[in-house]
Amino acid sequence: MENFTFHSPTKIIFGKGTEHLVGAETKEHASKILLHYGGGSIKRSGLYDRVVKSLEAAEVDFVELGGVQPNPRLSLVHEGIQLCRDENVQFILAVGGGSVIDSSKAIALGVPYKGDVWDFFEGKAEPQASLPIGVVLTIPAAGSEASNSCVITKEEGWLKRGYSSQRNRPVFAIMNPELTFTLPPNQTANGAADIMAHVMERYFTNTPDVSFTDRLCEATLKTIIQHVPIALAEPANYAARAEIMWASTIAHNDLLSTGRVGDWASHWIEHELSAIYDVPHGAGLAVVFPAWMKYVYQHDLNRFAQFAVGVWNVEQDFFDPEKTILEGIRRMEEFFQSIGLPIRLDELGIPDDRLEEMAEKCKKGPDGTLGNFVKLTTKDVLNILKLAK
Amino acid sequence: MENFTFHSPTKIIFGKGTEHLVGAETKEHASKILLHYGGGSIKRSGLYDRVVKSLEAAEVDFVELGGVQPNPRLSLVHEGIQLCRDENVQFILAVGGGSVIDSSKAIALGVPYKGDVWDFFEGKAEPQASLPIGVVLTIPAAGSEASNSCVITKEEGWLKRGYSSQRNRPVFAIMNPELTFTLPPNQTANGAADIMAHVMERYFTNTPDVSFTDRLCEATLKTIIQHVPIALAEPANYAARAEIMWASTIAHNDLLSTGRVGDWASHWIEHELSAIYDVPHGAGLAVVFPAWMKYVYQHDLNRFAQFAVGVWNVEQDFFDPEKTILEGIRRMEEFFQSIGLPIRLDELGIPDDRLEEMAEKCKKGPDGTLGNFVKLTTKDVLNILKLAK
Repeated sequence: MENFTFHSPTKIIFGKGTEHLVGAETKEHASKILLHYGGGSIKRSGLYDRVVKSLEAAEVDFVELGGVQPNPRLSLVHEGIQLCRDENVQFILAVGGGSVIDSSKAIALGVPYKGDVWDFFEGKAEPQASLPIGVVLTIPAAGSEASNSCVITKEEGWLKRGYSSQRNRPVFAIMNPELTFTLPPNQTANGAADIMAHVMERYFTNTPDVSFTDRLCEATLKTIIQHVPIALAEPANYAARAEIMWASTIAHNDLLSTGRVGDWASHWIEHELSAIYDVPHGAGLAVVFPAWMKYVYQHDLNRFAQFAVGVWNVEQDFFDPEKTILEGIRRMEEFFQSIGLPIRLDELGIPDDRLEEMAEKCKKGPDGTLGNFVKLTTKDVLNILKLAK
Repeated sequence: MENFTFHSPTKIIFGKGTEHLVGAETKEHASKILLHYGGGSIKRSGLYDRVVKSLEAAEVDFVELGGVQPNPRLSLVHEGIQLCRDENVQFILAVGGGSVIDSSKAIALGVPYKGDVWDFFEGKAEPQASLPIGVVLTIPAAGSEASNSCVITKEEGWLKRGYSSQRNRPVFAIMNPELTFTLPPNQTANGAADIMAHVMERYFTNTPDVSFTDRLCEATLKTIIQHVPIALAEPANYAARAEIMWASTIAHNDLLSTGRVGDWASHWIEHELSAIYDVPHGAGLAVVFPAWMKYVYQHDLNRFAQFAVGVWNVEQDFFDPEKTILEGIRRMEEFFQSIGLPIRLDELGIPDDRLEEMAEKCKKGPDGTLGNFVKLTTKDVLNILKLAK
C-alpha cells in the first residue's frame, strides 16, 4: 500500500424529499448564489420550482444560468464567471448531473482568477482561491458530487481536459434517488458504465498489498451489476435507484483509490471519442474498457483473474487463468449489452477514419505515455481503438 | 434504505513516517495545544520525541497531560479541562489509541462548557462549542480517529457512557502502520474484535434494501479476518498492519451505517463488563457477540445466513439455514480463539455472581430495552450473559 491523504469533506444529505433542505443548507455558506443547471428537465420535473422555493424560504438570493450541455463547454463557463463577478456571487449551486457540477466547479475556480480559467486545465497555473459549491444531484454517474475532479471541453479544437484539486470538492451534496426515476434508460445505462469505469480505473493497479480496497471495489461493482437491471425494468424502484446513487458517489470520492495508483488510460481515450463525436461519456467507456482489458490483461493475470472471479462470479479455472479472465471480460461485455450499451465503436456511430488522430491527440504524460497499469504509447492507443472496432 | 446524512470530514494522512507531518498539520489549526497521551509506551518507542520535534519545528507551543488509562476516566478528563483553561489551549492533540482519543474528545467538549462535561454523557445538555482535535494513532481498534463517538467511564459507580456528535470528529488523523509493529499480540487481537464488532453492530439491521453497505461491511470484515493472523505471526508485516489500520477507520467512520439502523446492544452489554471488571473492550466483545448471535439469530435467518456465507465462506445449506448460520458463528468463535481472544466470561476472569447486576445496570432506552435488531429486555441481557458463561 502506498502512503496517501484522504480528505472527502462533502456533507452527503441522502434520501427521499431531501431537495427541500437545499435552502437551509446553502444559507450556511452564502446569501447570494449562482443557480446553475442544464436543459429544461429540472423545470419540467418540478425540481427547479422546489429548489427555488427552498432558497427563497431560507432567504438566499440567486442569479441563474442554465444551458449546460453534456461534455460541458468552456464558453458557458466563461459566461458564468462573468455573471458571478457582475453579481457578487459567493457560492455556486449545481442542480443536475456531472456536466452541471463540473461546469460549476470550473466557474468556482475562475471567478477569483485574473487569467483564463482554462490555464488550470492546461497546467499553466494553480488556483489560489475558489468559491464553494453545493449540489442537488439528478444523475448518478460522474461522481462529481463528492469528487475532486472537473472535466471541461474547449470548443476551439474540441479539447477535453480535466483539473483535479481539493478545491473541487462540493461542501454538500443533496441526493434524492426519487429524482432519478424519470431518467431515460440510456442515461441510467451510461451512468452505470461511468460508475463502473471509475471503480475499474482504480482497481487495475500495480500497487501491491491493497486487498481492503480491492474488496471495496468489488463490493461497489457488484452493487451496480445487481441493481441497474432492476432500475431499468422498474424505473421507480426506490431501493435500486438508491443503491446505484450511493455507489456512484463512493465510486469516485477517492476512498477506493486510497493507497493505490489508478490507471485512467481508458478515461483519457474515451475523452477523445466524446470530444470529437460528442458521444455520452458512459457509452464511450463501455466501448473502450473491454478493448483496453483485452489489450493489457497479460500484464497481470492474477489481478484480472481476481476481477473475473470476484466481480463476475466466473468459476475459476486454476489451470487456465486466461480462460477465466476472458470469460470475465465476456461477461462484462454481455452485461453492458444487456443494459443497452454499445460495446463497439460502430455501435456508437464512430467511423474508423479518425482513429489515428484520436490516438495522437490523446493526453499523454511528460514521457509520452498514457495510463499507469500499463503505460500506453500512441501506437498502443491506436491498437486499443482498433480492438474496439 | 433509510434517509441519512454522512459527513466524515477528518483528513486522513496515512503511511510510513507520517508522524513527522503532525507539527505542520497542527499549525493549520492552532499555535497552543494540549498534547494528550497514555502510559509510557510512546516515550519508550521514541514516538513522543518525534512528535515533540515536529511540533517545535512548526512553532506549535504545547502543554502536556499523560496518564490516560484503558476505559478512560472522567477524573483525568476534568484535569485536562482545567489545564486547557489555565493555559489557554486552542486544540487537543491525541497521541495514542481509542482511550486517549476519547479522553481528548471529552476534554475538547468540556473546555468551553460551564457545567460538568459528564452532563453530555448523561443527556442533560448539548455542547454549543468545542475545541478541535487531531490524532496520531497508535492502535487500530476503536476507530475513534474519525468517528463521532466518545466513551468515558465515571469512577463513581463505574458508569461507562458514550456521547456521539459531529463535534467529536477529529480534524485530522495521522496513521502510520509502522507504529503498530510493537503492539503486544493481545492488543492486536483485542483491536481486531473491536473493529469487527463495529462492523457487525452495523451489519445486523432490520432496514431492508441495504445491499451496497452489506457488501462494504463484508469487505471490511474479510480484510480483518485475512490480515490479523498475518500481523500476529509477523508483527512487522507492513502490508498486513496497513490493511488492518485502514479498515479500522472505515469500520467506524459511519460509511458502513449509511442508510441503515445499527444494533449496538453487544457494545452496551460489553460496556458493563469492562466498567466493573476493567477488561479490554475488544476481549469483552469477543465474549458477548457470539452469545448475542446465538440468542437472536432466529429473528432474521436470511441475514444470518448471508453473514455466514458472505463473511465466513460457509457452504450454504439451502435446506437447513440454521445449520449454515450456526457454522458461521462457530467459525467466528474459532477465529477469535485462533488469535488468542477469550470467547467465554470465565476466560475473561469474570465470575457469574454479578450477571444480574450487569443486566440491570446496562443502559436502556426510554422503553426499557436495548438494541435495535432485537429489542432486549433486562431478562434478555441476562440470558445472553448466561449464554456467554
